[in-house]
Order: sequence, then structure tokens, then C-alpha cells
Amino acid sequence: MDLPVSPLAPAARVAPVPVPGVRLATRACGVRYAARTDVLLALFDPGTTVAGVLTRSATRSAPVEWCARGLAGGRARALVVNAGNANAFTGRRGIASVEAVTCAAAAVAGCAPDAVFIASTGTIGEFLPDARITGPLPEMAAAARPDAWGEAAQAIMTTDTFPKTATRASRIGDVPVTLSGIAKGSGMIAPDMATMLAFVATDAALPPAVLRALLGPAADASFNSITVDGDTSTSDTLLLFATGQADHAPVTDPDDPALAAFRADLNALLLDLAHQVVRDGEGATRFVEIRVSGAADAGAARRIGLAIGNSPLVKTAIAGADANWGRIVMAVGKAGERADRDRLAIRIGGVPVCADGLAVPDYDEAPVAAHMQGREILIEVDVGIGDGRATVWTCDLTHGYIDINADYRS
Amino acid sequence: MDLPVSPLAPAARVAPVPVPGVRLATRACGVRYAARTDVLLALFDPGTTVAGVLTRSATRSAPVEWCARGLAGGRARALVVNAGNANAFTGRRGIASVEAVTCAAAAVAGCAPDAVFIASTGTIGEFLPDARITGPLPEMAAAARPDAWGEAAQAIMTTDTFPKTATRASRIGDVPVTLSGIAKGSGMIAPDMATMLAFVATDAALPPAVLRALLGPAADASFNSITVDGDTSTSDTLLLFATGQADHAPVTDPDDPALAAFRADLNALLLDLAHQVVRDGEGATRFVEIRVSGAADAGAARRIGLAIGNSPLVKTAIAGADANWGRIVMAVGKAGERADRDRLAIRIGGVPVCADGLAVPDYDEAPVAAHMQGREILIEVDVGIGDGRATVWTCDLTHGYIDINADYRS
Repeated sequence: MDLPVSPLAPAARVAPVPVPGVRLATRACGVRYAARTDVLLALFDPGTTVAGVLTRSATRSAPVEWCARGLAGGRARALVVNAGNANAFTGRRGIASVEAVTCAAAAVAGCAPDAVFIASTGTIGEFLPDARITGPLPEMAAAARPDAWGEAAQAIMTTDTFPKTATRASRIGDVPVTLSGIAKGSGMIAPDMATMLAFVATDAALPPAVLRALLGPAADASFNSITVDGDTSTSDTLLLFATGQADHAPVTDPDDPALAAFRADLNALLLDLAHQVVRDGEGATRFVEIRVSGAADAGAARRIGLAIGNSPLVKTAIAGADANWGRIVMAVGKAGERADRDRLAIRIGGVPVCADGLAVPDYDEAPVAAHMQGREILIEVDVGIGDGRATVWTCDLTHGYIDINADYRS
Repeated sequence: MDLPVSPLAPAARVAPVPVPGVRLATRACGVRYAARTDVLLALFDPGTTVAGVLTRSATRSAPVEWCARGLAGGRARALVVNAGNANAFTGRRGIASVEAVTCAAAAVAGCAPDAVFIASTGTIGEFLPDARITGPLPEMAAAARPDAWGEAAQAIMTTDTFPKTATRASRIGDVPVTLSGIAKGSGMIAPDMATMLAFVATDAALPPAVLRALLGPAADASFNSITVDGDTSTSDTLLLFATGQADHAPVTDPDDPALAAFRADLNALLLDLAHQVVRDGEGATRFVEIRVSGAADAGAARRIGLAIGNSPLVKTAIAGADANWGRIVMAVGKAGERADRDRLAIRIGGVPVCADGLAVPDYDEAPVAAHMQGREILIEVDVGIGDGRATVWTCDLTHGYIDINADYRS
């Protein structure tokens, strides 16, 4: 199934700026696809630290379990990513494949296997043809270049209709540092899974504990605040590598004021990548921002936002350009969080459509209808209980989603 | 939008047996629809008890809140149901409409308003034209008949494509009693809401506490075990009325052995009605039974079953007749319940497709493929942790669902 590029794709493609201490190589290894690159090798110079956020699925894949152990050590020298096969639900043989790939990568990187990270996405339940990956690794290592970020974003795509990249010039204190990243994900991977992968690197010099403290909240506000279809992958993986080659003053406290700009830029870069995943949502024709306020706390606000963003009734209404706020009320009600029905207020495209538990009498429907016809939809909901705020992002649910996921045999 | 009758509709329509002490009347009141009945009045003889299960939505409607208060009293003399307007998110005026309708019904029934129950489904956020209901009530009361159950099921329909009725000849001890009921719901009500209503009556003589003890578990195993799109209505209402006209020995303990047959028949009747709701799911072309075993407990099993039954990826795969068990693994993983990935076993149409955390090598795909082409799909999942079991029911997610919910303006 050849899919056209999403109508929500960013107009301009960003070429990530090389990160000192990172080299990348891609190759067409034939894991599943023909005539395209499908394996990425990233090599990190000695001294690189790492933090990550992994899927909480109870059926997570062997590669995810491997990464969980590696993250405890906090050191990284290599990353291997393949597209087309998730190596999930593959039992002992799947674990053996992970060990084969990480061992081979450790040999070419000159490090211990526990400094190698791995991610696989694609079909579930099929054994990974690991020799197709391990065989080419030495040649890939020899060919690795600092400027191959765009190729890297291409190699990890599955049903993505465009590669996802982002970059930021940042600083720690007054010292410039670079942040560059790639992501994949478009609702799910043909033919099996919704999977997001994101890999970000920086030349900042930050201990693993500081990286973790920065990454957790940034992931919550970005990748954990988007939804395409509410389904959670066995393979979701977000990794942040810091090569330590920038010459800034040592930072050991995540609350160090010298991190202010870096924190903001990391948050922005992750949000940029997460938005690109939503913009490539299967069948998506509208990008939807849902701002929730007045909740008991930020967590409650996020759960309410995700209840709205995951509701098939809300998402089909948006597909139909229908400002159907009754469905938003319903989704707030089912979220399982406190809300005051009689203080609930909803704005669509900035126009109040209901307030104080009632439709706003005679609101001007024309600007609302015009807004719903656009590509970018804004829904604001105040649930009238407290000060908790959160923003989540989603896309509409269209015939295109059914086409991709039903009219298609594995 | 005129919808064809669901291909999953029961072949034969059941005419519920009249229940001594219950009279019914319907009328075309023009609440929203033209040229069809849209209001039901049920009258119950003195001595009727009632129990109910109501939506847990935080934004539930004024009629639901009224019923919650009435259920505390446990006595019923009348029920008024309208289709076409949910009287939800209508503020003080909505409460006033409930009071107007229940007062008028109390007058014709000769009872206190708190013995009147009310349910409204349809558009959210529009004021109920209550005078169109209260005006005809005296004539409706005069015309009420014991044998109008079929008409009652018709009058409460919204986007339902067929009326939903069920009846059981039961007994308490050795004394025959009747159970008859109606339901509505088909994913949601045009243009706003997923709403299920169900009303069941019996001539058994049971105190409210016994009715409640019977109804709760029966609702959990039926209406709380089905899903069309995972969206929860502001109006869901299930009421069980007992007129007390059967001449059986008094029962005051819900564990009285004399209730064994009645309990089983009530469970079966509610399950019958609940299945009819799924069979009328918007756009549904396949009826899906999901049996979960090996969970930590029954509640965990039900939540895992609902995670599978609500997954858009599972439901679109079923729509495409694709035995895509990888998506079932994913849904088990995201359910938030304990599961052992390496002991997980899945059978489709009775055929083991994966076991012990692996695809079953070389399983015979022909019978599985044939099963997936049918109208009735059976998925069995053992999550390998404990003894908890549950069964849930759902339907597939098709272009028809998008047609109904997106290509359609309110």
C-alpha cells in the first residue's frame, strides 16, 4: 500500500544539525522491505550518557526489555534500529536475536554489549532475520558520518508518509550545544502496530540522572500527550543521548539554572517530533489541539484531554467538520476525573460555544464552522474544578484510517 | 439518514409477554422526529418496586440525576421515555423540564413524583420541548395496554435499525413469573451520543434491596460487558421494575435458593438485550465474543476484554477479516492489568494461533480465515496469570461507522 504524504506534513523539511560525537549509517538490509534502507546504526563517542522512556505495555518486546537494562547503566556507545519487524512476541528466539545484534554492534563500536541500544518496529510475532543486520554492521560502521541524520530518519520509517526530524541550537550556561532528533510513527506500523520511536542526541555533558530528570517531564508533555488511536505499542522507545563534547561547566543538579534554555529547547524539540507523528496519523486530515483547564491537577487535565482526543465520536465529528460539542461533553464525562457539569465551558476555534453547563445562546456559528473546515483545530475545555492544565494533540478519524487498517491483509 | 437494518439483527423478532401490573402507551409527540412515535409511558400498579443502574458519567443528564434520587426510594408507578432529545447539558431549564414531565406523569398515575422515572436520549444541549410530552400524557394513560411492549420498543429507538425486545418465562420457587424487557442503543444517538436504555419488568414480588442485589451483577455481565466504540453516554439507564403481582412466597434475602431460576433468567434476558445493542452497533458487520481467562481476577479479565474490544486496530482488523493476533497482543499489553507475555495464548474460532509467547508454528490458517469471513467471531485469550475469567462482546469498526458519525451534520 503506497500512501500519499499526509496533508498535515510540515511544509519544510528540517535537516538536523550534526551533533559532535555522533556518527550515523543506514543500509538496505532487506529485513522486510525491498529497495529501501531499513537499518540504522548510530555510533557515539566514549563518554556518552543516555536516558530513555519506554512503553509500559505488559507485552513489550525483547528489544524494549534490553533497553530497560541498558538504561540502568546510563552509558551508550551504539544504537541499532530496524524497520519492518518488531521482534515482539518472539520468545527466546527473539531474545537471542537481540543478543546477536547487540553483540555484533558492540564489536564494531568497541564497547560492552550493555552500551548498545536497540529498537525494532514492524510485524509482530515473526522471527527477526538478525543475520541480515549483523552481517553488514562492520561496513556500516566504517561508513558512518556525522551528517546522515536525514537518511537516518528515512531508514526507520514504516508506514510513515514523511520522515520526522527536528533540531535546535541551544546552550548550557553560555556555551552553545546542539540538539538533533528523529522519530517515526503514524498511528501504527503495517500491518501490526502503533509504534513510536524517537532518538535525540546532544553534545551536552550531562550525567544520566540529570538526563532522566529532564527527559521524563519533557516526554510527558510531548509523546505522552499525543494520541492517534489510543492503542499502545509493545515497542515504543524514546532515547536521549548526550555525548559530552561541549565544553560547558559541569552540571550535576537537574535544577541548575544553567539548564533553563536547554530544558526549554529539549521540550520544544520533543514536542516538534511528537506533533509530526500526529500529523502523520493514519488517514488524518486535521491536526487537533485540545487545551484542558480547570481540572483537579495537571494529571487529571491530561487524562481528560486524552479522553477527548481518543473518543471515536469526537474524532469522527472533527473529520466531518462538525462542531459537535455534545460529544466533547460526553468525553469529559467518561474520563473518570472530577468535572463540574454546571461550570463546564468549551471554546472551539476561540469561540465560546458552551458555558456554565449550557449552550451559549445564539453564538456566532459562522467563525466556528469556518474553523472546523481548516486543517488546524483548537478545542479549549474548562472543567470548572481547579487549576490543573494540560494540552494534548490528536487527529481526526476518517475513512482513510479504516482503509489503512481494515482493507489490508498482513 | 435512513439506515438499513443491521446485518447482525436477530432473525426473528420476539414479542414480549405482558407482565401483570404493567400497562404501556406510545405516541408521536414530535419531540424531534416527525411521523413516528417518540414517547413511551409505562404505568405500574401500586406496590411496584424498582432498582436501577445508571451511567457513571461526570456529566450525566438531568433525567439520570432524577432517577438516582427515585431509586433510593425503591418504589415506582410510572416511567416516561422520550427519543430525540437527551435533555443533557441543559442546566436549570433541563431540571425544570424533568420536574414538569414527572409532575404530569405523577398526576396521571395518581402517585408522588418520586415514584416517576424518566429517560431521555437524543441531541445534547437542546432544551426539551416538555409541553409536547406533558400535554398528551392523560390520553396516553387512558390508552395504556398490557400488550404494547413491541410498540414501546419502537418508540424509544433513535438511530437503532431494529427494535430490541426480550422475554423469559421464569419462576420463583415453583410459582411462574414473567420477565419482559426492551432496550435501545446502537453506538450512539444521532447526532450526539452513545446511549443505551433498557427497561425490564417482572410480576415477581421482590423488595428493592433484593432487586438491587440481583441487578448489579447481571448488569456487570451484560450491559457493562459490551462496547461499540468505548464512548460512554451521559444518559445510560437500566431499570428493573417488579410489580409484585405473582403469588410466590415472600423473598427477603437475595441469596434465597428460591431465586436461582429467576436470577439465571434475569441474567439471560439482560445479556440478550445487550447483545442486540452490539448487533445494532453503528456500521457493524461482525459480532465479536471475546473470552478472557487466566487473569488475576474477573475484573481484570473484563478490563482486558474491553481493552481488546475497544481497540480500533483490533476492530478494523476484524472488519477486514484479518486474523491479526498481533493487535490482540498489543491490546492485552495496554490494558494495564497483569499478563505474562511468555504464557499468553490466543485462539481464533477455536484454533490456537499463538501459545507460550509465540506464534503456533504452522497452524492451519484455512479454518481461521474461514471463521474471520463469518458474521460471528470468537476470540479466546488466556493471559497466563491466574483464574480470573470474563466475556465481553463488541462489533467491528467499518466505513459504516465513519459514514454515520462523520458524514453527517447535526
